[in-house]
Amino acid sequence: MDRRSFNRRLLAGGAVAATGATSLSVAAASAPAASAADTPPGTAPAGGQVRRISLYAENLPNGQMGYGFEKGKATIPGPLIELNEGDTLHIDFENNCDVDVSLHPHGVDYDIANDGTRMSRSHVEPGGTRTYTWRTHAPGRRKDGTWQQGSAGYWHYHDHVVGTDHGTGGIRKGLYGPVVVRRKGDILPDKQFTIVFNDMSINNKPGAESPNFEATVGDRVEIIMITHGEFYHTFHMHGHRWADNRTGLLTGPDDPSRVIDNKITGPADSFGFQVIAGERGGAGAWMYHCHVQSHSDMGMAGLLLVAKADGTIPGYEPHHPAASADPKSGAKAGTDADPKADAKGDTKADAKADHSGH
Amino acid sequence: MDRRSFNRRLLAGGAVAATGATSLSVAAASAPAASAADTPPGTAPAGGQVRRISLYAENLPNGQMGYGFEKGKATIPGPLIELNEGDTLHIDFENNCDVDVSLHPHGVDYDIANDGTRMSRSHVEPGGTRTYTWRTHAPGRRKDGTWQQGSAGYWHYHDHVVGTDHGTGGIRKGLYGPVVVRRKGDILPDKQFTIVFNDMSINNKPGAESPNFEATVGDRVEIIMITHGEFYHTFHMHGHRWADNRTGLLTGPDDPSRVIDNKITGPADSFGFQVIAGERGGAGAWMYHCHVQSHSDMGMAGLLLVAKADGTIPGYEPHHPAASADPKSGAKAGTDADPKADAKGDTKADAKADHSGH
Amino acid sequence: MDRRSFNRRLLAGGAVAATGATSLSVAAASAPAASAADTPPGTAPAGGQVRRISLYAENLPNGQMGYGFEKGKATIPGPLIELNEGDTLHIDFENNCDVDVSLHPHGVDYDIANDGTRMSRSHVEPGGTRTYTWRTHAPGRRKDGTWQQGSAGYWHYHDHVVGTDHGTGGIRKGLYGPVVVRRKGDILPDKQFTIVFNDMSINNKPGAESPNFEATVGDRVEIIMITHGEFYHTFHMHGHRWADNRTGLLTGPDDPSRVIDNKITGPADSFGFQVIAGERGGAGAWMYHCHVQSHSDMGMAGLLLVAKADGTIPGYEPHHPAASADPKSGAKAGTDADPKADAKGDTKADAKADHSGH
Repeated sequence: MDRRSFNRRLLAGGAVAATGATSLSVAAASAPAASAADTPPGTAPAGGQVRRISLYAENLPNGQMGYGFEKGKATIPGPLIELNEGDTLHIDFENNCDVDVSLHPHGVDYDIANDGTRMSRSHVEPGGTRTYTWRTHAPGRRKDGTWQQGSAGYWHYHDHVVGTDHGTGGIRKGLYGPVVVRRKGDILPDKQFTIVFNDMSINNKPGAESPNFEATVGDRVEIIMITHGEFYHTFHMHGHRWADNRTGLLTGPDDPSRVIDNKITGPADSFGFQVIAGERGGAGAWMYHCHVQSHSDMGMAGLLLVAKADGTIPGYEPHHPAASADPKSGAKAGTDADPKADAKGDTKADAKADHSGH
Repeated sequence: MDRRSFNRRLLAGGAVAATGATSLSVAAASAPAASAADTPPGTAPAGGQVRRISLYAENLPNGQMGYGFEKGKATIPGPLIELNEGDTLHIDFENNCDVDVSLHPHGVDYDIANDGTRMSRSHVEPGGTRTYTWRTHAPGRRKDGTWQQGSAGYWHYHDHVVGTDHGTGGIRKGLYGPVVVRRKGDILPDKQFTIVFNDMSINNKPGAESPNFEATVGDRVEIIMITHGEFYHTFHMHGHRWADNRTGLLTGPDDPSRVIDNKITGPADSFGFQVIAGERGGAGAWMYHCHVQSHSDMGMAGLLLVAKADGTIPGYEPHHPAASADPKSGAKAGTDADPKADAKGDTKADAKADHSGH
Repeated sequence: MDRRSFNRRLLAGGAVAATGATSLSVAAASAPAASAADTPPGTAPAGGQVRRISLYAENLPNGQMGYGFEKGKATIPGPLIELNEGDTLHIDFENNCDVDVSLHPHGVDYDIANDGTRMSRSHVEPGGTRTYTWRTHAPGRRKDGTWQQGSAGYWHYHDHVVGTDHGTGGIRKGLYGPVVVRRKGDILPDKQFTIVFNDMSINNKPGAESPNFEATVGDRVEIIMITHGEFYHTFHMHGHRWADNRTGLLTGPDDPSRVIDNKITGPADSFGFQVIAGERGGAGAWMYHCHVQSHSDMGMAGLLLVAKADGTIPGYEPHHPAASADPKSGAKAGTDADPKADAKGDTKADAKADHSGH
């Protein structure tokens, strides 16, 4: 069994045990690579399915709030919702918080009754429920001959009513999550990680606990990067680069997009990309961080831990402080064991692997 | 008569009555759609005309300042100047303010005597006049074989001398306006609206009076978005998306540009795009706002009011406060009657319709 | 002899005398244009060379620090490092400062031992040496059939350990410089200038001494624009525009990239572009500046001095204050004689011309 399919199967099993979340998945994938490292990766199928999921808004410890696919399982960021162009998603939403909450999406198609704003009365009172419907579409020509873009993109959802009519309190407390809409033929990743720069935190974790993410050299890692709150940031990743376009991948030799490893971003901006972990740089504890100097110094930095096939990471001592003697170091070598950070990637890999068998 | 041409004729008539501004138009358009909603939209003709307009800088109430095509008619933003690649524009500028004022353009071709800076002595004293000349050009090959870009884009003009040598005072008070340069074949809109995030205001209006804009489902609405002042912002529109490229429209299936509904922008940045009002989302009072949370909370939010063909907007009560009980709500349902906000779109539609008959 | 080749020869000779830096060059160029202004410009050759240079980190007056190719010759920004896709560069680095210093690159390929971070122990103690290796690669297909981007881009390098584990102190003091990686066939410029918005300075110069850059009408001028520090900025240039893509040049009529003259940018962002000096605008003292109003007012502004073939600049009096009576003017007419500002462009032109003869 090659590494890629091995990873998928392992993650699938682990994630099922950990979350039981398979019934909440909304994405379908083509069959994973079958035999060799040089086999083409799986690609997204055509959409057109009508799906239904549950989503819960919940209070979390320390005054935080989150969305989850199951009661008592809310996370920050909320769970990844993945669709293929043409899919329709009905979200049975239940507000288990003590204040009004809503669900406002970016990127997908929705009518004003699904806007998630107080003005459109599409929020939900404590204990209340509401079904939000999101639609997506493939690109094509309109009747008038003009070209209509499709829904594919790296998008997100968030509350729009907690604290203020723009959801400032809800976003600050953690009511946000990622959405990926794929086009038929888009390359599917092996692992997915969501990184949200929310005010001065990453994924609402204090600087000393910024999330690390784990991959193996050769994994096709997808990063979904979202910004929220008050501040502008610049997202930088060491040792890896991506294209500044729809997929983060160049379409071929004629694609004029800039290749970058650093990108300015502001509240509600989102983008995504795929990198081959360690490609041309190898295994290592690769920093990712906000490159606004005071932000990284205050802890807006984590690690993409890229292991060799044998699981080792050269020069990295996970359970002891790294070489740095500076206690303010943004990259904390000792935090890689945070299971929540990695569960994010695993959960999604599971969702995809599970559906690939249909 | 189909809706599209009906709108154009109605707007043409209304705007003529309201402003008498037809002689100031500088754009020419191909014939509007003649008979059906699935008729291809009009497109920009080749440029090459030499045009001449008047522009006045004037003091406005409350210490504001503005540009206008006619004496006593200055607005904030200043009037839209629309050109086709190849056009030359002579602007007979008169400064009716009590301080030196200038006109500095972005995007178009001009020599140093038309730079609008104090250093180049191209500003105008109170009561003085000066003719500024802007040129534009179509793309093509240089003699050396390299490709030369054209002038097409969503640009703008502003003062460069009031208050400081960078026009900080003039821009703050309202001395700015939009410029659109089109390429032959670019799709023409039904309606155009200019949105300027200037410091913490939209179009220099206080937060409680942020402008709303009106359209009907199916209208091809063009947004010209400009930023000025001190702060970065993120421009977000509910229920609509666009491409992050030259026109805001994908060129077709091979265009790798990212489709977005939120964009970070800083002072003097400008971009534009077209959306089909309510496409895939229908009628509604759709918010647009800065997504920096404190900015929207302080009032940097308005509405794109998309009506059904019968003029109604589901769930929207224009002359009563909306459901929100929060007095700080950024989206004020009661401000849609602001005639100045809509006059902007109408004036331009008129300019185009008027010239389409040539 | 045509103007283009004349400039190259003149600059080559001058720069050799001034810096003796020819052995430090790392770029190779095709033969310069031979005879006429309408001759195609030179283009980058295929890479694949293995090169070796020395780089020194040094203390500079007034508490600043810099990188240089020779001892005692450190500059801010550090020297331009130019590669062609496929090249490998070994950098024999010597730290002559009194604190630990490192070299962290953006854009190029490197393994974790060349990351330049304290965590990876790839920094250098005072008096120490270390060889950093950077690799680059051309685009192409992976074994699995997917498209792999190349290394071409406008990148940069900087310290990552002085002051904090993110190099906040080193960057602030001047430890940064430009990197350009070219693709075979990329158009080569006549002159190159690096502009770094670092906190509220340009190239670490106080506002009153912002650098000016000199060119002649028709020169193909390349700007390498980098941002560092705490703040976001918007880079604007008067009278010239560029494409917002990999090269800053449109690939042809189908390139959907936006043409701009103003761009928001944050710390560690970098981009580059080429303009034909004075094309469609002629000679003049053209401002470039940050368009955040308070930033330009505080001095983040300089001049691109575009002279006629006879060396004159219409309306510009280099050794006397310009028309401005405002002592806070961002564009200082009297600072064009700063030899350091221009040496930057000359040094690089020399490097290229020198190697073009190999």
